[in-house]
Amino acid sequence: MNDAKSYVPPFEVGRALEGAAVGEVVASGADSHRPGDLVLHNLGWREFALLPAAQARTLDPTAGADPAAYLGVLGVTGFTAYVGLLDIAEFKAGEVVYVSAAAGAVGSIAGQIAKLRGAATVIGSAGTPEKVARLLELGFDAAFDYHEGTVRDQLRAAAPDGIDVYFDNVGGHHLAAAIAALRPFGRVAMCGAISQYNAAAPDGVDNLTLVIGKRLTLRGFIVLDHGGRRKEFVSEMSGWLRSGAVRYDETTVDGLENAPDAFLSLLRGGNVGKMIVRLTD
Amino acid sequence: MNDAKSYVPPFEVGRALEGAAVGEVVASGADSHRPGDLVLHNLGWREFALLPAAQARTLDPTAGADPAAYLGVLGVTGFTAYVGLLDIAEFKAGEVVYVSAAAGAVGSIAGQIAKLRGAATVIGSAGTPEKVARLLELGFDAAFDYHEGTVRDQLRAAAPDGIDVYFDNVGGHHLAAAIAALRPFGRVAMCGAISQYNAAAPDGVDNLTLVIGKRLTLRGFIVLDHGGRRKEFVSEMSGWLRSGAVRYDETTVDGLENAPDAFLSLLRGGNVGKMIVRLTD
Repeated sequence: MNDAKSYVPPFEVGRALEGAAVGEVVASGADSHRPGDLVLHNLGWREFALLPAAQARTLDPTAGADPAAYLGVLGVTGFTAYVGLLDIAEFKAGEVVYVSAAAGAVGSIAGQIAKLRGAATVIGSAGTPEKVARLLELGFDAAFDYHEGTVRDQLRAAAPDGIDVYFDNVGGHHLAAAIAALRPFGRVAMCGAISQYNAAAPDGVDNLTLVIGKRLTLRGFIVLDHGGRRKEFVSEMSGWLRSGAVRYDETTVDGLENAPDAFLSLLRGGNVGKMIVRLTD
Repeated sequence: MNDAKSYVPPFEVGRALEGAAVGEVVASGADSHRPGDLVLHNLGWREFALLPAAQARTLDPTAGADPAAYLGVLGVTGFTAYVGLLDIAEFKAGEVVYVSAAAGAVGSIAGQIAKLRGAATVIGSAGTPEKVARLLELGFDAAFDYHEGTVRDQLRAAAPDGIDVYFDNVGGHHLAAAIAALRPFGRVAMCGAISQYNAAAPDGVDNLTLVIGKRLTLRGFIVLDHGGRRKEFVSEMSGWLRSGAVRYDETTVDGLENAPDAFLSLLRGGNVGKMIVRLTD
């Protein structure tokens, strides 16, 4: 890993990992939580979790979404897409948007929100022909496999007049290609850098001088800072899910014992949409 | 030059170059302009210029500044410093600011404005010991010569707790060093990239992943977009000049025939403050 430190505190060796999870209450000493309640909490990577009631948010069963949706499209990844596109990149109707890692849990939702909010064109990139096909099914106007040529050339072919917004999940040379394609006053929501996290030597972005003349804005964000927008997000996204306007994919792996492999597969792009580990039926 | 296209239209071979100039009206067919008037126009690089009256802005002789100031501290370079620091980097009192090419016409003013507006610490870098000494005279809290060690190490020594704002006139590894030093929610005003314009191979910035976790904003700008702020700038800067709160340097070269050398010297850092070519006494 390069000197990009994580914003999550390091895990302690010998302790169970943490992570978002949906579970059913099996026992509770708090009036607020009853056995059978569906809750969202952060003690994943284990089959039973013991935690203060205040750290388990009861989910509304009438919302009608499947429980795993609260980990994805209605949870942190959907919310990340929403905040990144609308607040960080300040997307406006009529603009051309490019999303990398677009078949992932964040990217696939970011692209669909852009279409629903009036994008002129939404372009996605992904790492397999199957993912590219899926993006077109989800309503992306154009999609390409970044293995099939340079990102720069394929982006130019998909958006010959350039792009206004880049939703960056990948970093490195994808970011450089987007900077080359951005039009004056374009914006980049810097959300993730999956190409860089485990890179032996990180890519250098060598065309940042373009940021000046094109008056670009590159902005990094972490969705945890934007809790004030969650209510609006949940309301709008719930509507889109009910109407079928937004569709989402999940890649499900069964059993806690397979969670490490699921995590490694995520880093290698083995998932379409949200990677879910199902602990029990 | 790399693929960073200039935002100024290319000059035509065989035609006189253009550039900001202060001159005296010697003849006028317009009621608005009388011989003897001091005017600012854009047909520099020549001793006599013929132009429409509307393109020659009459300068107020009562402002008391020397004419060349309208090319620098009261003109485009001072205005660039003002807009870049206050509007683009959204500098706030109490913050730590780093300015590169800080002995230049833009950087030296940006640093002084930061101090006047309440910066906790202002750090400048430059390319000679004389420039470093000058920065300390101008009120910078710390200054270093980027030849004397890595920018990253010297910046860390000057700002052990990090910086909030980077005013970037240099680009390349100076920008990378600033990204490493920026604190959460820090901002970069991307104003120039003097290290990159004539580089055979531009520097790659390899730590952009930090922009995400630190929630940084990098924003490029061109001062011409910000004309609406000029009146406020001129008013505030005129006051600072009258009171002596802002000081500015000029490097003056005599004679049009020496203008090409002056320009090349500018690119090599041969100037302190604004580079001025004096055409006549």
